[in-house]
Amino acid sequence: MTDPAIIPDDLPTSRPGQRLQRGVARMLTALGHAALPEFVPVGGLRVDVISISPKGEIWVVECKSCRADFIGDRKWQGYLDYCDRFFWAVDTDFPDDLLPEDCGLIRADSWGAELLRMAPEVRLAGARRSRILRDIARVSTARLLAMTDPMGFSA
Amino acid sequence: MTDPAIIPDDLPTSRPGQRLQRGVARMLTALGHAALPEFVPVGGLRVDVISISPKGEIWVVECKSCRADFIGDRKWQGYLDYCDRFFWAVDTDFPDDLLPEDCGLIRADSWGAELLRMAPEVRLAGARRSRILRDIARVSTARLLAMTDPMGFSA
Repeated sequence: MTDPAIIPDDLPTSRPGQRLQRGVARMLTALGHAALPEFVPVGGLRVDVISISPKGEIWVVECKSCRADFIGDRKWQGYLDYCDRFFWAVDTDFPDDLLPEDCGLIRADSWGAELLRMAPEVRLAGARRSRILRDIARVSTARLLAMTDPMGFSA
Repeated sequence: MTDPAIIPDDLPTSRPGQRLQRGVARMLTALGHAALPEFVPVGGLRVDVISISPKGEIWVVECKSCRADFIGDRKWQGYLDYCDRFFWAVDTDFPDDLLPEDCGLIRADSWGAELLRMAPEVRLAGARRSRILRDIARVSTARLLAMTDPMGFSA
């Protein structure tokens, strides 16, 4: 399973993308979603935030702090296979024109975020959805246990 | 969603069942499961531990600290509808003869547990399984966020 990874408290020293992650997770929580950062849907891919809506819809949000961060991402189209809706989250300084228009758009900072453009829905097949839900459940319960009972992993 | 609920560190003051929960969660983790305590599969039912195997099999473990705790439980048969396998977890002093033989049996204490009898498998229907996986994922990610970013719930 994925190593426990949480957003550190010392945000000023975090990667810029991690600051945006926190704001995105707060916005998703306010929308009723359950949001998990740093999720690996399949070997070689790591999404910044994955979330589950109350009805089980799966969103993926990629956080980009600057132009270079976006240009250097050669994997993002692979993320589309693991969600019903895909969003970019960028801060106020980001050149939005760079981003594909057929994705969702979120304006974010460390403290919160705003949904500017809803992503189109491309529904996952049932078996794929079940597998992703299982994996999210396993990763998040493992991280939770690592925090509440660290000895549980060496027992 | 369910309120965040974690196993407290101050185990000596915990309910006896919570002490067993910790040992059970450690055993399940060692088996490769992801274990979540205090899960509500449907209104009115609360299971002590629910876990997901690497292949997505769902187990429920009810922890019983004494005869009265078992006798007073009028709801346990309802739990069978939310798992592929159902287990009792009891400590060394428990009179095992009380327990139905067609359930699994785990010997547990605060520090660990041992699987004494595998439970028979009664496989969940696909839609029910997906719903449970979704709910486990949502509850555990919400508890995780409550620990890593408490402000996320008031933003």
